[in-house]
Amino acid sequence: MEKANKIKGGDVREASRLIRNLEDSIPEAKSTIKHIFHFTGHAQVIGITGSPGAGKSTLVDGLIEWSRKKGKTVGVLAVDPTSPFTGGAILGDRIRMQRHAEDPGVFVRSLATRGSLGGLSKAVGDAIHIMDAMGKDVILVETVGTGQQEVEIINHAHTVLVVLVPGMGDEIQAIKAGIMEIADIFVINKADREGTGKLQRELMAMLDMSPIKPGGWRPPIIKIGNAFEPSEFEKGLDELTTKVLDHLEHLVKSNLIGDRVRRKTTHELNEALRAAILEPVLKVLVSTGELDRMIDQLLKKETDPYSIAEEVQKKYLQGCI
Amino acid sequence: MEKANKIKGGDVREASRLIRNLEDSIPEAKSTIKHIFHFTGHAQVIGITGSPGAGKSTLVDGLIEWSRKKGKTVGVLAVDPTSPFTGGAILGDRIRMQRHAEDPGVFVRSLATRGSLGGLSKAVGDAIHIMDAMGKDVILVETVGTGQQEVEIINHAHTVLVVLVPGMGDEIQAIKAGIMEIADIFVINKADREGTGKLQRELMAMLDMSPIKPGGWRPPIIKIGNAFEPSEFEKGLDELTTKVLDHLEHLVKSNLIGDRVRRKTTHELNEALRAAILEPVLKVLVSTGELDRMIDQLLKKETDPYSIAEEVQKKYLQGCI
Repeated sequence: MEKANKIKGGDVREASRLIRNLEDSIPEAKSTIKHIFHFTGHAQVIGITGSPGAGKSTLVDGLIEWSRKKGKTVGVLAVDPTSPFTGGAILGDRIRMQRHAEDPGVFVRSLATRGSLGGLSKAVGDAIHIMDAMGKDVILVETVGTGQQEVEIINHAHTVLVVLVPGMGDEIQAIKAGIMEIADIFVINKADREGTGKLQRELMAMLDMSPIKPGGWRPPIIKIGNAFEPSEFEKGLDELTTKVLDHLEHLVKSNLIGDRVRRKTTHELNEALRAAILEPVLKVLVSTGELDRMIDQLLKKETDPYSIAEEVQKKYLQGCI
Repeated sequence: MEKANKIKGGDVREASRLIRNLEDSIPEAKSTIKHIFHFTGHAQVIGITGSPGAGKSTLVDGLIEWSRKKGKTVGVLAVDPTSPFTGGAILGDRIRMQRHAEDPGVFVRSLATRGSLGGLSKAVGDAIHIMDAMGKDVILVETVGTGQQEVEIINHAHTVLVVLVPGMGDEIQAIKAGIMEIADIFVINKADREGTGKLQRELMAMLDMSPIKPGGWRPPIIKIGNAFEPSEFEKGLDELTTKVLDHLEHLVKSNLIGDRVRRKTTHELNEALRAAILEPVLKVLVSTGELDRMIDQLLKKETDPYSIAEEVQKKYLQGCI
């Protein structure tokens, strides 16, 4: 409780430690996060996703700048859904953000998977809650890639930006598949490059074919110029931030914000249930050596995974089979 | 049992139906797959992964051709870890493969997620078992993307090809993260393009820095030319297939094949346990309306997900908490 109160007071060290402990699944962290929940629900959460090299970090940097100018405090969560040992390379991209390191109104943390995807999503949700409890007004969640994992992580955001760059070939194929449903705003980054018009036309054609979103929101397409040409970049960024605010207003006016929060909460509960129901069973099987014996049986083809799973179910589940 | 025997006899219709039923989680399919397991363990499974547009399907097509020339039967599993409604676009890429449609020695199926990632991985494993039981000598598993999901799906393969194309910008960043550990062979596709040398040098530098793989295998880098220039393409393909055979021989000689099979079996058992332990609890919570009530409590901030999960755990788990 004391730790939760410290975090509510904005204690950076306590918050950082809690995020790290949650990432490492340290049991003690769970009791702190329980108290955190009551302090949450105030931040505006913006998800930023797209392929590696799409310029997400530059965009995040621009959004930090903009938020600070408006007097808002910012939390940034950089999610790297890949192996931790390569974290260095990814973090290199984020050097740009370092210029906010001295600003007490900006709190930047990165998260990597230490196990399952489900675990990552849970850690992301909890880290957002922590930043929310700290009183951050805007939380920017940056994720790499365009797969199922983003679709999951995005459950935590109010507004989702999908960042694209021209000339990535068949990337549009990957976007079609999965990302269309989650994008609230499309950003074409590095829009001074060849292929910008083509990409924009393709996106528009896809939007024409897509089912209309709840409340009639049609994801706008914002073009942002090269970050090395400040005036062009800022023009695009201005347009983007206006649309981000429009989208939030749209969610509130059409009562959709409630749906988003409900979806996010449902997702979070599912993750917590997975950890509480499945993991204890696996732990027992591992610690007793039972799992190894089962695998040996399978390798000898004495049985099959489904039959084993049914036995485990009978032994450890009650009242629902 | 009768169905399992039909599939063992190579019955395409029965096999297709079983794959579809497993994908749709039709309970009856489970009892058939139980009998399938005893007929498996003979096929050589090759995973092919890489970004959209990297030319994976062209490569798969080439590998089918090569296998057929060697008198081997082939199963192809195209995995689309994204939303099903866009399946059409992805399948369009596979038109090339259609020329094998009349060949009874080639069995092509695609799988899409109908739910969780875990579910997809399970369906992939089962579909491989079905093709294996049918007597296919070589099974090619093609997956899109370079995220955590590939790392999981790849648990099913003996040899993993990671396909790259020059000029994809910072894609190498994404490869560094996660894919390095799973690649047994790198393929630079469309190697007539500018940037091939640079990509090759980057890969070699990365390999130099990576920990040595079990048994001392250093992933070779194979360059394959444009598919529209048959002689160039075939030269590269020949080199690739030689390396694929080398890798299999390496696995056998260094006794690593046992490790791979064990890893695959462990992964499969984990998936089966997830389905048997977690899903029944969720089903009860949904059907009784309990889950909705819990979410309402969370939205009112009367409690937190961890506390709810602990209550559910106490109610439905036995003997392991």
